[in-house]
Amino acid sequence: MSRFDMKGYLGFWGQKVEDFFEEYMQPHDPHTKGLNEAMRYSLFAGGKRIRPALVYSAYGIFEGYFDKATPYAAAVEMLHTYSLIHDDLPAMDDDDFRRGKPTNHKVFGEATAILAGDGLLTKAFEVMCDRNLNPDITPEQMVEAAYKLAAATGDKGMVGGQVADMDAEKGFFDAATVDFIHTHKTSRLLAYCCELGAILGFGTEDDKRRLYEYGMRIGLAFQIVDDILDITSTTEELGKDAGSDVANGKATYPAVHGIEDSHRKAELLIEEALELLSVYGNTADPCREIAKFIIERKN
Amino acid sequence: MSRFDMKGYLGFWGQKVEDFFEEYMQPHDPHTKGLNEAMRYSLFAGGKRIRPALVYSAYGIFEGYFDKATPYAAAVEMLHTYSLIHDDLPAMDDDDFRRGKPTNHKVFGEATAILAGDGLLTKAFEVMCDRNLNPDITPEQMVEAAYKLAAATGDKGMVGGQVADMDAEKGFFDAATVDFIHTHKTSRLLAYCCELGAILGFGTEDDKRRLYEYGMRIGLAFQIVDDILDITSTTEELGKDAGSDVANGKATYPAVHGIEDSHRKAELLIEEALELLSVYGNTADPCREIAKFIIERKN
Repeated sequence: MSRFDMKGYLGFWGQKVEDFFEEYMQPHDPHTKGLNEAMRYSLFAGGKRIRPALVYSAYGIFEGYFDKATPYAAAVEMLHTYSLIHDDLPAMDDDDFRRGKPTNHKVFGEATAILAGDGLLTKAFEVMCDRNLNPDITPEQMVEAAYKLAAATGDKGMVGGQVADMDAEKGFFDAATVDFIHTHKTSRLLAYCCELGAILGFGTEDDKRRLYEYGMRIGLAFQIVDDILDITSTTEELGKDAGSDVANGKATYPAVHGIEDSHRKAELLIEEALELLSVYGNTADPCREIAKFIIERKN
Repeated sequence: MSRFDMKGYLGFWGQKVEDFFEEYMQPHDPHTKGLNEAMRYSLFAGGKRIRPALVYSAYGIFEGYFDKATPYAAAVEMLHTYSLIHDDLPAMDDDDFRRGKPTNHKVFGEATAILAGDGLLTKAFEVMCDRNLNPDITPEQMVEAAYKLAAATGDKGMVGGQVADMDAEKGFFDAATVDFIHTHKTSRLLAYCCELGAILGFGTEDDKRRLYEYGMRIGLAFQIVDDILDITSTTEELGKDAGSDVANGKATYPAVHGIEDSHRKAELLIEEALELLSVYGNTADPCREIAKFIIERKN
């Protein structure tokens, strides 16, 4: 067991991002008060903040001026939050609770939830491309960050993964489909977070590729462990309904490979991820710890 | 009556944008075939293509290399298309038809329609920030274009206007609310299109401000004329249900100012818009024609 205080580490970066939300997401007009409340509600609804931590951790391999990365770490979390709000909608997964709290549409209604998601998605790009907010980021870095975010999360990325996930739920799925879903729905955004650290830290193209590949592997391992925990944990341990994947006929790794092979695959991915980091010194230790945390976590 | 062939003019630029969609929006993976179809369905569902025409027309004041502007004109139309798909959803305006065709969710289902909208919104930023696709646009221009698009269409822009519109439908609205809704929901994106032309054409800050103000005025006039046509036209003339604004208790200009004052206001706005263009020579004629078209149009 690692002696690295992962909870404290994630909490530290999570707080930085929440401070940014608090300052940046102030209400600005009485006509959009409800929208602002809905956006803030989901931004502050908790979560591991693993994506911001990955941005900061990957960035830390190259530079130490972490506040420079904050708007970008926050933007990624905004984008992740939008995807959760839309995923939970009645037309999609129809979830009433997330992390023990009522989902956005249960509190604010479906229309506002759709628009809060749209607003957060748009805001992620606004934050990344705001030159006043990011005086130490060059336009070249901004464009690369925004372009790769869009590529990772649009129809060829996360949104495509979500569509494939819904289709799979309706009927047949095989190993290739599950791989497609997991890599697109989860891994690509996590890989982007890691590559983003290299972009912001003026890493080389090799650095970017390496961090991206590291992120793809821990991302897929993250999702496989999620699938396994859904089967092996209790609802209490998870903080959400255990066994819901099987009940909903979800396309998961254990469903096509079994639990044992799934676990081995996750371990292999983490080994590969760590191997990719071997060219870096101890500035990459947080990334190493995150990789280990992903396979050891219990919820 | 103007002898400028506006239908042919809009059709010409609309075709350029559709050609871009055709080439750029090819299906790329069998797992996301349905998503791709849904995105294409709404992109090719017609419409006046007034936003792309504004981008090209404003750009034409400064430079004549129009193909440079095509990905940006297309990106704006993608963003506009996403907003229509989401606006039509059952939880929002619940419309079954748009321009005589079944709305996206009627054809592809709600979940896919939400994701097609998300995909198109994301794609707009992907297209704008793609350096391979836009070799003649500088990173500075890209960042400015992407940032201002996000600002014009997010919670402080179009999405905020849509929230205010829905709230107003539920109850009381006054002249200030209608102004807020129209400027945010419609004018800001049209103003952005005009400013974008100046950004792409290396216009000065004064040019950008001027084109933005021109766009705000024709945008508001456009919406006021829409409101008036909803009352004074037949369903046949409009190609959509006439009188639906009144039936739905929509916050409109005629509802708070009456038809006559609304028409006068629209005329005044067009006069101001034309006055703003007075510093330009005949390269601004298409922008002048669009302003006149907006007030003279019958559907």
